[in-house]
Amino acid sequence: MSPLPLEERYSAARIHPMTRLSQQLNFILEIDKLKTILRQTLITSPDCRQENDAEHSWHIALMASLLAEYAPSPVDVLRVTRMLLIHDLVEIDAGDTFAYDAAANSDKQERERLAADRLFGLLPADQATEFRALWDEFEAFMTPESRFANALDRLQPLLLNTRTGGGSWRNHHVTPAQVLARMDLVRIGAPELWSTVVAIVDDACARGWLPS
Amino acid sequence: MSPLPLEERYSAARIHPMTRLSQQLNFILEIDKLKTILRQTLITSPDCRQENDAEHSWHIALMASLLAEYAPSPVDVLRVTRMLLIHDLVEIDAGDTFAYDAAANSDKQERERLAADRLFGLLPADQATEFRALWDEFEAFMTPESRFANALDRLQPLLLNTRTGGGSWRNHHVTPAQVLARMDLVRIGAPELWSTVVAIVDDACARGWLPS
Repeated sequence: MSPLPLEERYSAARIHPMTRLSQQLNFILEIDKLKTILRQTLITSPDCRQENDAEHSWHIALMASLLAEYAPSPVDVLRVTRMLLIHDLVEIDAGDTFAYDAAANSDKQERERLAADRLFGLLPADQATEFRALWDEFEAFMTPESRFANALDRLQPLLLNTRTGGGSWRNHHVTPAQVLARMDLVRIGAPELWSTVVAIVDDACARGWLPS
Repeated sequence: MSPLPLEERYSAARIHPMTRLSQQLNFILEIDKLKTILRQTLITSPDCRQENDAEHSWHIALMASLLAEYAPSPVDVLRVTRMLLIHDLVEIDAGDTFAYDAAANSDKQERERLAADRLFGLLPADQATEFRALWDEFEAFMTPESRFANALDRLQPLLLNTRTGGGSWRNHHVTPAQVLARMDLVRIGAPELWSTVVAIVDDACARGWLPS
């Protein structure tokens, strides 16, 4: 018997649409695109380049383990970590919407919902449901896990801005009131860190990184 | 009373060496450097640029939740995920050592041990111990969690190479025997995935991405 044609072998091994594993591997390869979605935040390297969503997601997922003691009530750290690892996947289709761009934020929710339908829909049904529920939980900001996760998502760019001369604030003429409004999720999701946030914003004003 | 001088306020808020929170925040900012450590693996974007360690760590941490069912025995997914989020931090000091570079691998262990001493030493003592233990566990390859985590660390670049025309294999004239030897950790840490690995290597040979 002759061996299977190349394309069939390849398909059987890796991308056959009917196997659970191939759905999972295709999802893993699809989300590689997150590495190309740029944020407004700058990283602290000498070239101060823009951070991408994959790097950001790694950073805050690790922060969840480091800072869990500041959650207002005990949280399931695995659920927080999973939320943070997947929370920006929708931006593969919907793009990164800059926090302080009001116009772009008007249809953000609808664009991201469609993206969630498509991306999590690539997974086997049980995992599609599980991952979509995690993303919905993050967005809804109702559980202690979601609130803590959202606090870390806001805290991280603030920290990076302190080491990049004001970073995205300066590039976009953001005001202290806008920053504090955006950081309100830290006040709710990690209240012990709030005084540090205020001190950082205060200091950024004193340094001229934010207008006084 | 006049307000605190600027430098003192800044220091009190963010970088005072004597507070637990400031140690944690300084560590978070120090590990931002992981985003600048380039690997040999190429990402699947049209420009096929090199992946960095932060992106890689995000990708495999997410894979831990997706593929946990293929671990040979039930694993603590949070511990696997934490290991994967921190496993490459030592490369901030020690650099990325290409898997198939025998000379550079001869002193890798010592360079990485020194890096672990410095980096985890930035944390409050309890967290320094906890994170160092996780890294030691990952390196020792003895527990089911460590074996599964190492399997994912090997599997991910293999998957990316299937979408980048052979990627790092072609760029470095790697042989199929070298790839299979390196993938042996997948056979041990996620045995159900082994036949897929073999099929992918076989296919890469047929396509001329690896020499037959």
